[in-house]
Amino acid sequence: MCDLCVIQSVKQRMLSRRDFFKATAVGSGVAATAALTSTVTGALPAMAQAPSTIADMTHELHAAFPTFGGEPQFELSQVFDIAKDGYNLFELKVNEHTGTHLDAPLHFSADGMSVAEIPVENLVAPLCIVDIKARAAENPDAQVTPDDLKAWISAHGDIPAGACVAMNSGWDAHVATDRFRNADANGVMHFPGFHAEATQMLMEEADVVGIAVDSLSLDHGMSQDFAVHYSWLPSNRWGLECIANLDALPVSGATLIVGAPKNRGGTGGPSRVMAMV
Amino acid sequence: MCDLCVIQSVKQRMLSRRDFFKATAVGSGVAATAALTSTVTGALPAMAQAPSTIADMTHELHAAFPTFGGEPQFELSQVFDIAKDGYNLFELKVNEHTGTHLDAPLHFSADGMSVAEIPVENLVAPLCIVDIKARAAENPDAQVTPDDLKAWISAHGDIPAGACVAMNSGWDAHVATDRFRNADANGVMHFPGFHAEATQMLMEEADVVGIAVDSLSLDHGMSQDFAVHYSWLPSNRWGLECIANLDALPVSGATLIVGAPKNRGGTGGPSRVMAMV
Repeated sequence: MCDLCVIQSVKQRMLSRRDFFKATAVGSGVAATAALTSTVTGALPAMAQAPSTIADMTHELHAAFPTFGGEPQFELSQVFDIAKDGYNLFELKVNEHTGTHLDAPLHFSADGMSVAEIPVENLVAPLCIVDIKARAAENPDAQVTPDDLKAWISAHGDIPAGACVAMNSGWDAHVATDRFRNADANGVMHFPGFHAEATQMLMEEADVVGIAVDSLSLDHGMSQDFAVHYSWLPSNRWGLECIANLDALPVSGATLIVGAPKNRGGTGGPSRVMAMV
Repeated sequence: MCDLCVIQSVKQRMLSRRDFFKATAVGSGVAATAALTSTVTGALPAMAQAPSTIADMTHELHAAFPTFGGEPQFELSQVFDIAKDGYNLFELKVNEHTGTHLDAPLHFSADGMSVAEIPVENLVAPLCIVDIKARAAENPDAQVTPDDLKAWISAHGDIPAGACVAMNSGWDAHVATDRFRNADANGVMHFPGFHAEATQMLMEEADVVGIAVDSLSLDHGMSQDFAVHYSWLPSNRWGLECIANLDALPVSGATLIVGAPKNRGGTGGPSRVMAMV
């Protein structure tokens, strides 16, 4: 499906997203059991064995962390200081879409799930890592395509039910430099992301609860239409941006844990992301 | 050890906390491997079998969530609205110690670990739940005592290495009412917490990385000296306050996951807390 077709398809769906969601129900596995409100307990994706290792997939967040818009979006203000008050305490001011963070469906839909409404069982997901590092090193506008997904499936088998599919473009290595935003003379950014044809394939042919990227956006940096945001999130699936350390994990077999904030009505937020192997 | 002795002991330690920490090293298990800076991967506590269920131990956070000081500490401001901007986005302003949240060692120490410095392997912990619901229903000033810990150990065996010990006082049921703060006519709050003798016992006789309470503070509400905060946190162990849904878990055998924010220099913060069984 071409970008234009995807956008048209998205617009049709947006007209009546609730009916769309009721009709398609996000596949047949973990996600299909997801109510539109959060639950206290849920089934974990099946694990072959007890995990023995935990990995931190989160960048440290600070005032100079690179942002999509370019302006700082994180501020810690000291309210109490142990030297004079007996303890330390800060107030935090942060844009929801800063650092290693979740995009909840509500971010790009009128009535999709807020971050607090995502069922807890959808925040723990088998992790499928699609490695496009070699291509992204040559071309910062590289995208995850349906062919990349087909190659992953050929090598590792079907995408597990309730999975998260992550792009490993090697971009997390640039987080401390201008290369992370990689803006050209016209201010257009150049970093990798998903192609809307790939996420469309995931919606139609797999049972995936979320996607993750190690760059600043689900769409690649030069995107003008945000085709992935406008098609993926309104389907009540989530996205993770600025994930770190994907190289520490196997491309198949890890389990992602998204420690997303539970802010009422929130469209996402800085999250503590971990993975078990 | 009486409260006064604990406080005196704490003060001595505070004079030279780094030396104290080097000397005692937090036991012999998971915590003992914890460097003072965070790591990408670490060993998980041993699990008898692969977990099959996930539970959400997090209260939803909103502007009216009860706070220790009584004033609102959470605010979401809409910056972009999908109806006119094409997407939704909020800016968040929050006191670090609001909602279901972590107290990092730095909260009550001059140079303890910030929330970003806690090793990731110390954020996943075998969970030991001490049930004092019956006593707390009779007396809101109830505390977890060494006898409660001894009774738990008699019934369930030794506290596992790298564990979190949680107080289940039933207080999470009051989160939507004034009973959660339970302030008297003089403004003194009355809710359950840990007794400093119990946390002292955990420091001396077990290998515990954190404690958790389902009330507003590690210390019980009427505490004037914050004996638990001033002894526990400076030892580079963490605390969790306002944990939810402990009744959904077995008192032994669950694994807690603390999705704490990774804010550079932060003293804690609202966290997504989950547990696997």
